[in-house]
Amino acid sequence: MPEQFHIVPEAAHNALIAAAYRHRGFHADEAADGARFCAEAARHGIRTHNGIKALHLDHLFGSGSRGCVPGARIEEIPSRFAAAKIWNANKKLGPSTAYRAMDEAMRLADQYGVGTVSVDNAFHYLWGGGYVMDAAKKGYLAYTNCTAALAEVVPFGGKFPTLGTNPHSWGFPTTDAIGYPIIIDWATSVVAMGRVQQLKREGKPLPPLAAVDQDGQPTTDPHRAVSLLPFGAHKGYGLSLINELVGGFVGGSLPTIRNRWDRAEGDKGTCVFFFQVIHPDAINGGAFAKGRDQKQNVKAVLADILGHGNSGAMLPGQLEAGWARHTATAGGLLFSAAEIAAFNELATEAGQPLWDAAAFRTVTI
Amino acid sequence: MPEQFHIVPEAAHNALIAAAYRHRGFHADEAADGARFCAEAARHGIRTHNGIKALHLDHLFGSGSRGCVPGARIEEIPSRFAAAKIWNANKKLGPSTAYRAMDEAMRLADQYGVGTVSVDNAFHYLWGGGYVMDAAKKGYLAYTNCTAALAEVVPFGGKFPTLGTNPHSWGFPTTDAIGYPIIIDWATSVVAMGRVQQLKREGKPLPPLAAVDQDGQPTTDPHRAVSLLPFGAHKGYGLSLINELVGGFVGGSLPTIRNRWDRAEGDKGTCVFFFQVIHPDAINGGAFAKGRDQKQNVKAVLADILGHGNSGAMLPGQLEAGWARHTATAGGLLFSAAEIAAFNELATEAGQPLWDAAAFRTVTI
Repeated sequence: MPEQFHIVPEAAHNALIAAAYRHRGFHADEAADGARFCAEAARHGIRTHNGIKALHLDHLFGSGSRGCVPGARIEEIPSRFAAAKIWNANKKLGPSTAYRAMDEAMRLADQYGVGTVSVDNAFHYLWGGGYVMDAAKKGYLAYTNCTAALAEVVPFGGKFPTLGTNPHSWGFPTTDAIGYPIIIDWATSVVAMGRVQQLKREGKPLPPLAAVDQDGQPTTDPHRAVSLLPFGAHKGYGLSLINELVGGFVGGSLPTIRNRWDRAEGDKGTCVFFFQVIHPDAINGGAFAKGRDQKQNVKAVLADILGHGNSGAMLPGQLEAGWARHTATAGGLLFSAAEIAAFNELATEAGQPLWDAAAFRTVTI
Repeated sequence: MPEQFHIVPEAAHNALIAAAYRHRGFHADEAADGARFCAEAARHGIRTHNGIKALHLDHLFGSGSRGCVPGARIEEIPSRFAAAKIWNANKKLGPSTAYRAMDEAMRLADQYGVGTVSVDNAFHYLWGGGYVMDAAKKGYLAYTNCTAALAEVVPFGGKFPTLGTNPHSWGFPTTDAIGYPIIIDWATSVVAMGRVQQLKREGKPLPPLAAVDQDGQPTTDPHRAVSLLPFGAHKGYGLSLINELVGGFVGGSLPTIRNRWDRAEGDKGTCVFFFQVIHPDAINGGAFAKGRDQKQNVKAVLADILGHGNSGAMLPGQLEAGWARHTATAGGLLFSAAEIAAFNELATEAGQPLWDAAAFRTVTI
């Protein structure tokens, strides 16, 4: 169903988000990183992780709790390995940490072909797709995973939530081939807890095998749902476990105390990030069929996958690229009336002038 | 339901498998690699990819077709990147190629922290879990993916099969923590085509959303099923796409002509392998809670995940470790009567003495 959006100049959006971060004590460079990240989320239609969510999460788990420390400095842990860096983020703002880590992984990939950056004591980076998209637009194959804030997901065959919604994000440099980077980016639960709450408000059922009740039994009733299930049974469970394992090897402690500061006393409640970048030349065998170069070959492979009557299939990242086109055409970031109202709550908190919704042009999409 | 197995001495099994490979023209070192791989599959209860399947696939797609060349030599493609190797396998036997590639990736990880080996013109490596398990037992975090032999899977939202069953395999060095390596290893389709054929024979329905009919409509009738669906809707589709993309960047051509040699004339019909190894020290932040070291920390994380009443949950790799214990206890590899008969077909083909099932001790599991 078409929806009306207000067209907010990107500079106005970024000024408000930066002011909101500074009001919470973040330094100017962190506030700028946060604003950059939130603009990218909005540009690509990531409405679940835009500026409103970013500052809400900061309140719940970040500078408003014990998960994030404004002005924190990242320390590099000494390592004997040239292509793999290890950082202690000291609870620095997630987007500031993640942009820096992905930049470093790209630098390592330029030098060694592949590079990893593992980050201990990290704070929520919101939308992993944004960081792999940045690297993919710059020409790299990029990957990130993280341990999600809270253990809300029940292991396959279990009853009690001991896993995060642990997302994975992959980005591929396909802009030359198809006009935008392929971004594969999702949580390992069927739905997010926010979706359970939304369906509860709307009186609608959950999809099957998305949540369990307090006895660990699957339920489609959002009023009875207390924990989430991984997607794809043992396969999604395995994917969620990967983030907990990588987290455990890097420095994360027990999933069930993560961001539960009342239980993490004398223990460790922080998240872990993992980033990896591969230079496309480092996997280029140079022997493509039909005289193609690497980009032409990837384009031909994708055309084959979406050919043969598969016009109903989409590529991951296609919706995000579509939103970026809407945004560019409109000449500003697109927000609903409800979102404008939420931004004005942030403006009030930060002592900034309110946005006048009526002053923005609108577009219906 | 308990099943009776014949206990076949590993040396007898390996001698038969090696003889069967040599009979097909493979060199002694390739035959030994093949026998080693098939023994590992049998040891860990991977009955879908044991020696019977290995030599059947070689007949269908390998030395019996145009997919595999006995005695082929692997060439290293020159690269400016120290931590990333690129090989042209020239259609060498899959296990020979994969063991060498994983060994090289471990060597790179020892030196740089992380290493990748991309392999063009590869032939079916059968069970990716076997190679990551080998690396995980040696102490590394390992990963592999490959493009599967045939395009049998329909992209999410599409109708025609243009993707392989494209598996992913991850191995984690958790033996010190829990007694065995965690091995996350599966195809990105809900089921394999072999399962469809099995259910057709048995007159049983397919699981929902596992296959489509000739019009691309989902069906649970194995008689109407012509193509497979990815698991987990767009999520499994994205995971399958990763293998095709990596394959396309390395050197693989169109998925729909892969191993279809009648259509690949003047084009390229081979598979691609990708291997990656990370040294655990290269992601060790060194700041584990409660004075734990890295292994103790991973153990504590896993205990938390399987605690809290989650005794019904298992870890990926647990079943394989259980089979390895059964095998060790029995003192030989375990095969059903039907499997013994299939091995005897290989013995007949290779001019080897037949196995006398009655001469083997048995065990019921």
